This record gives sequence, C-alpha cells and structure tokens, in this order.
Amino acid sequence: MSDTKKATPTQPRHARDITSWDRETDVAVVGFGGAGGCAAIEAADAGASVTIFEVASASGGSTAMSSAEIYMGGNGGTRVQKACGFEDSTEDMVTYMMMSAGPQADEAKIRNYCENSSAHFDWLAGLGVPFKDSFHAERAIMCLTDDCLLYTGSEKAYPFREQAKPCPRGHNLEIEGDNGGPLFMKIVTENVEKRDLIEVEYETRALALIVNDDSEVVGLVIRQGKQELNVRAHKGVILCAGGFNMNEEMVQKYAPKLLRGNTPIGNPGDTGTGIMMGMSVGGAAINMHEGFISIPYYPPASITGGILVNDKGQRFINEDVYHSRLGQAVLDQPGDRFYFILTVEQYGDYEKFNFMGASIAGTGETIAELEEELGLRKDTLAHTINIYNEDVEAGTDSLFHKAPEWLEKLTLPLVALDLTPGRGAFVPYFTLGGLDTLPTGEVVDPQRNVITGLYAAGRTACGVVRRADGYSSGMSVGDATYSGRMSGKQVATTR
Amino acid sequence: MSDTKKATPTQPRHARDITSWDRETDVAVVGFGGAGGCAAIEAADAGASVTIFEVASASGGSTAMSSAEIYMGGNGGTRVQKACGFEDSTEDMVTYMMMSAGPQADEAKIRNYCENSSAHFDWLAGLGVPFKDSFHAERAIMCLTDDCLLYTGSEKAYPFREQAKPCPRGHNLEIEGDNGGPLFMKIVTENVEKRDLIEVEYETRALALIVNDDSEVVGLVIRQGKQELNVRAHKGVILCAGGFNMNEEMVQKYAPKLLRGNTPIGNPGDTGTGIMMGMSVGGAAINMHEGFISIPYYPPASITGGILVNDKGQRFINEDVYHSRLGQAVLDQPGDRFYFILTVEQYGDYEKFNFMGASIAGTGETIAELEEELGLRKDTLAHTINIYNEDVEAGTDSLFHKAPEWLEKLTLPLVALDLTPGRGAFVPYFTLGGLDTLPTGEVVDPQRNVITGLYAAGRTACGVVRRADGYSSGMSVGDATYSGRMSGKQVATTR
Repeated sequence: MSDTKKATPTQPRHARDITSWDRETDVAVVGFGGAGGCAAIEAADAGASVTIFEVASASGGSTAMSSAEIYMGGNGGTRVQKACGFEDSTEDMVTYMMMSAGPQADEAKIRNYCENSSAHFDWLAGLGVPFKDSFHAERAIMCLTDDCLLYTGSEKAYPFREQAKPCPRGHNLEIEGDNGGPLFMKIVTENVEKRDLIEVEYETRALALIVNDDSEVVGLVIRQGKQELNVRAHKGVILCAGGFNMNEEMVQKYAPKLLRGNTPIGNPGDTGTGIMMGMSVGGAAINMHEGFISIPYYPPASITGGILVNDKGQRFINEDVYHSRLGQAVLDQPGDRFYFILTVEQYGDYEKFNFMGASIAGTGETIAELEEELGLRKDTLAHTINIYNEDVEAGTDSLFHKAPEWLEKLTLPLVALDLTPGRGAFVPYFTLGGLDTLPTGEVVDPQRNVITGLYAAGRTACGVVRRADGYSSGMSVGDATYSGRMSGKQVATTR
Repeated sequence: MSDTKKATPTQPRHARDITSWDRETDVAVVGFGGAGGCAAIEAADAGASVTIFEVASASGGSTAMSSAEIYMGGNGGTRVQKACGFEDSTEDMVTYMMMSAGPQADEAKIRNYCENSSAHFDWLAGLGVPFKDSFHAERAIMCLTDDCLLYTGSEKAYPFREQAKPCPRGHNLEIEGDNGGPLFMKIVTENVEKRDLIEVEYETRALALIVNDDSEVVGLVIRQGKQELNVRAHKGVILCAGGFNMNEEMVQKYAPKLLRGNTPIGNPGDTGTGIMMGMSVGGAAINMHEGFISIPYYPPASITGGILVNDKGQRFINEDVYHSRLGQAVLDQPGDRFYFILTVEQYGDYEKFNFMGASIAGTGETIAELEEELGLRKDTLAHTINIYNEDVEAGTDSLFHKAPEWLEKLTLPLVALDLTPGRGAFVPYFTLGGLDTLPTGEVVDPQRNVITGLYAAGRTACGVVRRADGYSSGMSVGDATYSGRMSGKQVATTR
C-alpha cells in the first residue's frame, strides 16, 4: 500500500492509491451474523462469488446470542400460522408494523417486508430451519418450549388492537429452552459452507471502504494479523457488521437515553464500525437516537394484572403492552421512581420467576401504609387504585385501555416492586439506528441518492424496526435475515 | 468545469477535476446570518480575506427574524447583570446549561461558551449592539420594552433552581417592541461592510464542497444566476447556512416529532444544505432528532397559576417552566388531549393577550361539569384539583414543585383551554441537530477526527443547545454569534 497511515472506518481509501489488490471477489460481506449469512447465500445463489469477513473466530453475531424468534406473517399466513388456525392479512401486518415504527416508519421497506414475509418463512424452512406447527398461548417474552407461534408484541394491546386485527407472528425454532439463536446460526453456517461460491475469512477486521474517482465503493481494507490488505469487490460491499451498542462513546453521542439501561444486548463486534464506514462515503445514518430499551416485567403473565405507577402515584400505560413499550413509557415520564403494584397472589407468581430482578420497594396492609413506605404523597396511590378497582368492576379500563382479560381487582395487602431504572431491575437495551437504505439494501445519502457499490443489512442499516415503543420480539432477526437476503440478491445483479 | 453533472450538497467535487478557479479567497463563509456575520468579522480581524456567500438578496438569516435575545452571563456578570445587581457565577451558568442540554450535553463546548460569555457581551457591545442597564422583571417570552435583562428560561423553576443559583441571562437589545433581530443584523452588517477584507456575494447558492486528494476541504461550488463557479478557499470554508427546519422531508426523516408543531421558525434558506455538505465529506451530524418545540402559553404571567392536565385529568409538569419545556412534556405524555385549567380571573388575563391562540375546551360551575365537558373520566380532574388546592393551602406543590409564588387556589367556576397540538394553539418548532464540531468550530467525523478546512457555526453545527426541555430564549443567537466568532478566529490561524 502506498499509504502508511492506519486505515480507519471514518476515512475511505482511494482506489487510485492502491497499486495491487490482495484479494478479489464479486461481493465482500462484512460480518457473519444472520444478515451477513443470508446475504451471502442469496448472492451466491444468484451466481456471484462472495467472501465474508468476520472479526470473530466463528460465525454467529448477535443473531446467535438471541432467541432467533422471527417476526413473519401476512399473505394469508405462514405455514405455521395456517396450521394453528390463524389467518393473517398483509394489510393488518403492514398496519401493525407502521404503528410500531411510529412517525419515522419507512413504508416502502415495511410493505416489502410484509408482502414477502410468508415467502421468507418458506425460504428459511427451505434452508432447514425447523418450525413446529404449534401455538404457544401463554404471554411470554420468549418461548421456552419447542412450540413455534406466539404473540411477541403489543398486537392484542391498545391502541394496536383497535387498528390491526391481532395475529401472532413470532416464530420460535423447534428447540427446547432459549436456544434458537445458536441453532439458527448453525443452520445458516452450514448453508454457507456448502456453497462453493462463498469463502469465509474469520478473525478479519474490516477497516475502511475503498472508493474510486467516481465515489463508487469498489473494495475494502481488511486487517488479518498485523497486515492491512486491500480487497477488490467487483460487484459491491455489503455491511452486516451490527449496530453500535458496544461503543459506549457512540451511544452517549447518538442515543444517550439508552444509557439509563444497564445491559447492552449484542456481541462485542457491535462497535458501529459498519455504520461509520457507510457515513465516511456519504451514507446517511438515520434514527440514531432510537433504541430498544426495556423493563421485561413478565413472565409471569399474571403480573399483567397489576398496575405500574410513577412517583406521583399515577398510572401512565396499559400494562398489557410489550415490555419495551412499557420501558420507553417509563423513560418518557417525569419523576424518578416507578413501582409495579401487585396483590400478594400476583407477587407470589412473580417470585417464582424473578426474571426482572426487581426488589420489593414496599408492602402495605393498607394503601396509606404503602404510600408512606414508597414516599408517595398521601391519597395519590389510593386515588389511582380506587379508580382502577372501579374500572375493574365495570370491566373497562377507562383511562389506559388494558384489555379486559387482564383486569384484576387490587385487593389488600399490596406489594410494590421497584421498577426504577438503575435500582436493580434488568434493563436491557440495543440501538435501532443505522444507515438509510432502500428496500434493496442499497445505501443512500441524505438526498436518497444511491451510493454505488455499497449495501447494508441487519442492524448496520436502519431497518423496519424504529422504536422501543413499537418493538416486538422477532423483528430484529426477521429484519436481519430478510434485509440480508435483499442486499445479496441486489448486489448480484449489478456491474 | 470538466464535470457536466449538477453539483449537489451530498456529493463533494474533487479539486483534481477543476481546471481553473473562478474565485479565490482565504475564507469562504456560507450564509450571512448572525453566525456568518460574526465569523467573517473575526476572520478578517485576524488578517484573513473573507467572502460571504448568501443565497438571499440581503443579510439576515434566522437571526434577523428572531428577537435577538442573547443568553450571556457568568464571570461575575455582564455589565448589565452587574448594573442590575445580579452576580452571576460561571459555575452556575455551566450547571444550568449542562442541565439544559441533558444527557447529550457537550461539556467542552458549554464550558468554553460560559467562560467567555461576559467577554462575548463586551465584544458585541464593541460592535455597537446597544444594551440598556435595566432589568425586566415580568415573566415573559420576549421583552417588548427597551429593557435589557430578563429571565428567559427555567432558571427559577424546579429542578434547575435546586442545582444552579438562578440568574437572568437573557439580554434584549435596547429597542421597543420585538425588533431586536433586524437591529442586530443591521449592526453586524455595517461591521462587515466597513471591513475591506470582507466581500459579500448575495443571491449566491452554495452547492457543494470541493476536496483535494487528502480529503481536505479546499473550496466550494457556488451558483450565481445559471452559472456554477468554483471558489478556492485557501484557509477554509465555514458553513453558517442554518438548520433544516424548512426541509420537511428532512425533518420527517430525522426529527419527525417536530411535525406535531404547526409553525416552523426560521428563514426559507434553512433547508439543511450546510449540514448535508458537511455530511458529504464525512462530517458527523448529531442530535438530529431533537428540536425546539413549544406551546408558548405565557404571557400573561398569571396563567402560570393554573394547571396543565392530560386527558386522564393528571398534572405532569410544574407550570412555571419555560414554554418549550412544557411543550416537550406534552409530546412525551400518553393520550391525545391537553388542557390548561384556569380560574375566571386567570382566563381574563389570558384573553387580553391570546398570544397562544388556544380556544376554550370547556367551562364548569362545578368540577364534575368541567370533567363532562372535557370528556374526562369522572373524579379524575376533581382529584387533581383537590390535591393541588390542598398543596396551595400548604404552600408547597408536593408533586411537581411549582414555585410557591405561582401557587394559586383553583376556585370555581373554571375554564379549560385546549393546548392539544393540532387543535389551534400556536406550536412553533425548529431543529437543534447539526454537524458535530469542536469548540473551535472545526467539523469532526464520527470518531472526532477533524475534517481539515471545514468549519460550521450557528444552527448548521450542533451547538450548546440540545433539547426543547432545556432551551432558554437567547441561547440560539448566543450560540450562533459565539460559535461564528470561534470558527472565524480558528480558520484565520491555519494553512
């Protein structure tokens, strides 16, 4: 190399400075998680030669660390939805996902995802991913049996249920326990390995993009051992390098609200390198302030019968929503403390799991006693509970619209769990911002001009998921695998 | 030009493609508002030749459309603060501004701003900007007399007052009515015109940056009439082209929450071009999701004695905060409707101004009647008012900490104003995101490497102001003028 400076993800190299290429491939894929694996498979199946560069010594990425639930449906239903008696319409799925993404929804991307979602199920099943034709009825964050289908979001909760007919769309792999991720990546990896057109180079760090004089991406600088090598990518580079959850400085700069959480969810490679490489050639990073942040308060499902209050003793959300919708609502509230108020019976169920790690903040034989223990102003929690209990009797949560099935009278004595972020409860988070892409995976600049030769998928791109308050389990692996496929297909057709 | 494509702000041109330069200058300044004017003055005073390129046919920018209140203090006090008997400490000012900027505060920038703030006052006064040694005691959004000093933020409100000793820091120009902006820009323009080292070219649009083979910014493509011209900037380019408030597509993409407002505040040139030009050469745009969004509910100051409730009948903020802190709190609340509950006397005062444009949502001889008119659940507003009135009697707002001076008993009959965004009330907004810069104005990439030759100031940069819920009037013109000066000083010392 003519340049003796160290390559950095924020400074592209110029092809004119490169005297010889150390590697050549049609498609360079950065990162071998769910997105990178699926991208490579599609590109190879369309006839392109592919090299995957993975910084770790094995495939996996964040997908392998996840439950690998996959959010799919629409089109009348996936095979599993149909077998379990659910008919799912594409429009209901689009409506739900548009609501989930809120004002920053990318409608073209969501439509593309939903319209091809049952076909995506078939493609995954074709790879050998096992899905059992069974439904898991219980309200749960993840499915610990080998059953497949479950409700994984706020589909049955207000306001979603009012606009989109609820349907379960979380697809869990046919495996006991929370072991979907490793199984899923094992299958993807086997599919990669059996394709002659794909090579994988592990323990290889992507350092910087290489551009030509027309500002097109034509390759990639990598490091193996102490060597910096130049890779020519004839058709393009696909960045599937994850988000920036493990780069605390970057989280502080772009999404500081997430630092109220205590557990970043992801793999050590989620350092934002892929996003920064895209930015270095003019790619627009969008939605960088948003992230999934959650207080996973169930299981047990029965905790849903309790109420969540702030330090004014006020309720502020229907407690039957998905756990990150509740987590986001907590962050948006004034005040410092948050309590889940439960009956002794509900607390008994909670104690068996204690998945959330929240401690008891107070108990009361009377509401006044509980108010005092929690440091709440007199008559505030009492008012909230009286209104709630009146509504329970009437069968309608008049203020927050929790579904009738979860309305249970709060009878004395009562227990308060401390849900305050920073006081012991498990508060996981991960980033939801990334490079703006077309549904094809092509990276675009702030005016949505395509940056020729550059693609992004998975969390390096900003996908269909945009907000904690609309997130549903399965959307991340769904987006990673589907957007990976789209970019792999697209890159194979070019140059 | 060798290139026949149209230049765009998202695609830099390359110096090697340019066969001849149409203009040469040491410093090219894009935009002639408060930031650009002050940048040019400082650069020229340090000996550099400067050309300002302004898209409009006159100077002004958003500064000329503002009240030109300027947020200054610290260092024992400005001349005016001292004359009015206020001693202001730099640490109190830093603490207040750090709280204002929240978790995304840039401490280095805030410290630099505060430590030099009374010197900045002297510099402005030296330009001829008139400030009267007088204090305007009334709670107001802007000062309509020719008095200078007033409280323009949440300095006296909870929680700010608990951590930083309150001090008024808004400096209003010595002119009757809301006419500070035009006067301020007239004075800045006169100062620019009398400097031989500065040239101004109006009706000139900046199209794209020009970079050399080392990725340094060396010039600018401009358009005059139908001609694209190449400007060589020997020392650098300073982008002072405003924010992106008038680019609705960009607001939708980056800061969609602002679109719940109804009045973008700024000048037609606030199209984000400067920010996009910076991004095109690898500059990091940060805080792009944030903006000032407000419900300016006072004057009259007496409205502060009322209470703000959501559609659950709950209070959620101390009503003595700055108006954009209240506006942001409204956006963060669940529910659709927001009401300001007033006594007939308070409403009488409001009616005289009706600055906010809010209509009456309901009235009640009893609270039950008002609940019914507003569609609130029975006993919810009643509970809130009972608690509030008890607290008024006790002299302490136990839940939200409104200062005692504003605690007034809510006596029947009552009037409710509709503060719901989208239902008539004036809800102004502007963007607070921009290019990440060092305190010197140097634009940096996501890893905070300086992009040689590129500077940004005013709203094109992401300055000391970061959030609606901490904003105070005078911070924008304060930041624009001060950051403009810093970049002008810095650029003059280089190359």
